[in-house]
Amino acid sequence: MVLFRRSLGDILRSRRTELGLTLREVSGSARVSLGYISEIERGQKEASSELLASLCDALEVPLSDVLRDVADAVALEEAALVAAAPTPIIARRPDEVVASAA
Amino acid sequence: MVLFRRSLGDILRSRRTELGLTLREVSGSARVSLGYISEIERGQKEASSELLASLCDALEVPLSDVLRDVADAVALEEAALVAAAPTPIIARRPDEVVASAA
Repeated sequence: MVLFRRSLGDILRSRRTELGLTLREVSGSARVSLGYISEIERGQKEASSELLASLCDALEVPLSDVLRDVADAVALEEAALVAAAPTPIIARRPDEVVASAA
Repeated sequence: MVLFRRSLGDILRSRRTELGLTLREVSGSARVSLGYISEIERGQKEASSELLASLCDALEVPLSDVLRDVADAVALEEAALVAAAPTPIIARRPDEVVASAA
């Protein structure tokens, strides 16, 4: 299952490290506890919409940009899941089924 | 403040009505209470990542598509907020400030 909070955490951490900010600095400007931000970045806690807005402000990035980046990351995960799924027998060519049965 | 859950609720409701599904039908297939889905659609409750994944399954739409639609809606809201914001005095031309003071 592709989970929103995991990709969101990755994107938020990337943005923070791009800016060269520490967890402590973001915690101060977003007024959110350091431990909570760390859990969000690791995809372990859900961020409320208000908290997400505060984090985007602190990271000087529009929420829409963050969501687009998350959508792109989720799309890659979805594609990887489809590629990893076993091919249903009904989709195989009949000669393949015969060959493997022989 | 632009809130993720409000745009998300709008997008999820649009998708459900596009498919001609009732709240009761989505509630059954996503195994989420009808009242909870209704609150999510109205932007009153946050959806956990697991619940969001279930809703996307029930609505037969990839999470990445939902997030892209939410990002687009959020971008429009952000643009409207910028347009509605008062022009800071520092950004005005000096003659405008003089004119309004005269």
